[in-house]
Amino acid sequence: MLRLSSSILREVMKTTLRDLSVNDDSAFHMIESVISASLRGTDSHGINLFPHYWKVLKIGRVNKNPQFKFQRTKPSLGILDADFALGHHAGAVAMDYTMQLASEAGSGFVVVKDSTHFGAAAYFGLMPAQKNLIGLSFTNADALVKAENAKTSFFGTNPICITAPLENEEPLCLDMATSQVSWNKIRIYRSLDKKLPEGWAFNKEGLPETDPHAAVSLNPAGDYKGFGLGLIVEIFCGILAKGPIGHDIGPMFTELEKKRSISHFFGAIDLSQFLPAQDFKNRLQNMVDSIRQLTPVGGAKVMVPGDPEKASTIERLESGIPMEESRFGEFLELNPNFSKAIIQ
Amino acid sequence: MLRLSSSILREVMKTTLRDLSVNDDSAFHMIESVISASLRGTDSHGINLFPHYWKVLKIGRVNKNPQFKFQRTKPSLGILDADFALGHHAGAVAMDYTMQLASEAGSGFVVVKDSTHFGAAAYFGLMPAQKNLIGLSFTNADALVKAENAKTSFFGTNPICITAPLENEEPLCLDMATSQVSWNKIRIYRSLDKKLPEGWAFNKEGLPETDPHAAVSLNPAGDYKGFGLGLIVEIFCGILAKGPIGHDIGPMFTELEKKRSISHFFGAIDLSQFLPAQDFKNRLQNMVDSIRQLTPVGGAKVMVPGDPEKASTIERLESGIPMEESRFGEFLELNPNFSKAIIQ
Repeated sequence: MLRLSSSILREVMKTTLRDLSVNDDSAFHMIESVISASLRGTDSHGINLFPHYWKVLKIGRVNKNPQFKFQRTKPSLGILDADFALGHHAGAVAMDYTMQLASEAGSGFVVVKDSTHFGAAAYFGLMPAQKNLIGLSFTNADALVKAENAKTSFFGTNPICITAPLENEEPLCLDMATSQVSWNKIRIYRSLDKKLPEGWAFNKEGLPETDPHAAVSLNPAGDYKGFGLGLIVEIFCGILAKGPIGHDIGPMFTELEKKRSISHFFGAIDLSQFLPAQDFKNRLQNMVDSIRQLTPVGGAKVMVPGDPEKASTIERLESGIPMEESRFGEFLELNPNFSKAIIQ
Repeated sequence: MLRLSSSILREVMKTTLRDLSVNDDSAFHMIESVISASLRGTDSHGINLFPHYWKVLKIGRVNKNPQFKFQRTKPSLGILDADFALGHHAGAVAMDYTMQLASEAGSGFVVVKDSTHFGAAAYFGLMPAQKNLIGLSFTNADALVKAENAKTSFFGTNPICITAPLENEEPLCLDMATSQVSWNKIRIYRSLDKKLPEGWAFNKEGLPETDPHAAVSLNPAGDYKGFGLGLIVEIFCGILAKGPIGHDIGPMFTELEKKRSISHFFGAIDLSQFLPAQDFKNRLQNMVDSIRQLTPVGGAKVMVPGDPEKASTIERLESGIPMEESRFGEFLELNPNFSKAIIQ
């Protein structure tokens, strides 16, 4: 396993995208998103995706120089036409509008249409929480989660991200797929030829499956509850954006020339209109500290959402982002200077 | 098992509460809430709770004649002081304000403080959906759900209810506890002396438990994901309302003289600002119809959230609300006229 310096990765990614004539803002947000995801330990949405994003930018599925169109329809609502930009850029622009609406109307919600894969939802979700707002970020995705009682999948892993500021540390951040585990976990078990735990996945007959090679769909988190939450996310994304919904969205990693039209939904609520921001942060800090101090059972640490990501960030800023050597070849093909990022 | 007429129950409940000097609006909303919950099959929040509500009104834990105070703090935000009213009444008043805010600002959110048990979240959640708005209703509750990796419970079952209008039928309604099952299910298994399925509950050591008599806390839905969602609900309720949070809220069915100070959170979003309401309803109707038509597996019907409740309502409007004879004695003690509600 290699260890890579996040700051050198950032610089080499920047020149690599500049060489491809990707506009600076798109490049900035995609790079910050994948690096922060990798630092946070969310490898499924981290630097591993950089070669994929490079390919879809080059091939034209994703627009290197998008023209965004924003329409404010009500004091607290708006729609952003993303012109098939990198979802990271579209999301950052949309969240900026969302926060502006919230600062005026108290809450703000922006639907994004004709976007593309936006990476980790937390990248946007954390923006309002840095400004003493409650943040919210949803996206739809291609169908991978089995519909309850059905043979096949219907919705994507449709994640829910909700954030809030804390007094003594980085914001609280819940960022969860509405499936029990991510598809990436299945891919890891495949590569290790390891049996899946029960309750993760189904085969093409729609039956529970522990062979990672035979798994084709994911179990929703909490069975029908996760399925219901995935459906709600789709209402806020595909339905409101008039875009395609889960099972009509093309696959991410194949048919690269085909546009995908992903929809997102962003929200922000001005918590200081309910109680002083300082009181909010104190109250929430006390609550999460009380949880962390509960008597543990079974040896695992008692944590709140986002704690594993905070621990990972500290560790990886210090010792670098891990990557399999076999995977690093893709990076060197894009730009030999990536070799400078290797710490050990 | 008795079968009871919902329309006669409604009338007898009304006179029973009038005899107790409960104000008409409080009585109206509590009665409509428990009857609609029972019709929808949500027996844990239905007419079974009527004798409990009567008791806490009589004893003064719940205020028979509350004075609500509403403060609009931003175009889309407000706070309602519920003066310890029946939560059903406080919630209905708050949702009314919420919808007014949404009609002006595009979205509306109201935090309710110093309220009491509000019954089924769907009673309020469905109000905006009847007016072509997306609806949202959360509440906190006393601690019953085990914190992830901890020995004891911290949050209540903190439900999430989200609704949206459909073209050809009553609105879509997701109304779910953030625990895998409700506490009421454990109570039913207790009364039947039946072993609990694995993954539902824990004992006082914080270990998985299938003996219903030894179960003291519930498993969050989807393990740490449900725990995270319960925490988010608490942020919107107890934290924003400056009220007590889960483990500081007293028990519902004991210490009846003690006030409990439950917090709620209501939201509405004007979907017609994103696309014409008619298009929204068509798109969502098509989506849920496509789901229902998926090939089933394992014999169970493919459904969307709210389908079981719709089927129950049709059946129970026809043949009455079922109730164990042993439980009906409580009703007759309150008012002998309840006997007139018996269909068979």
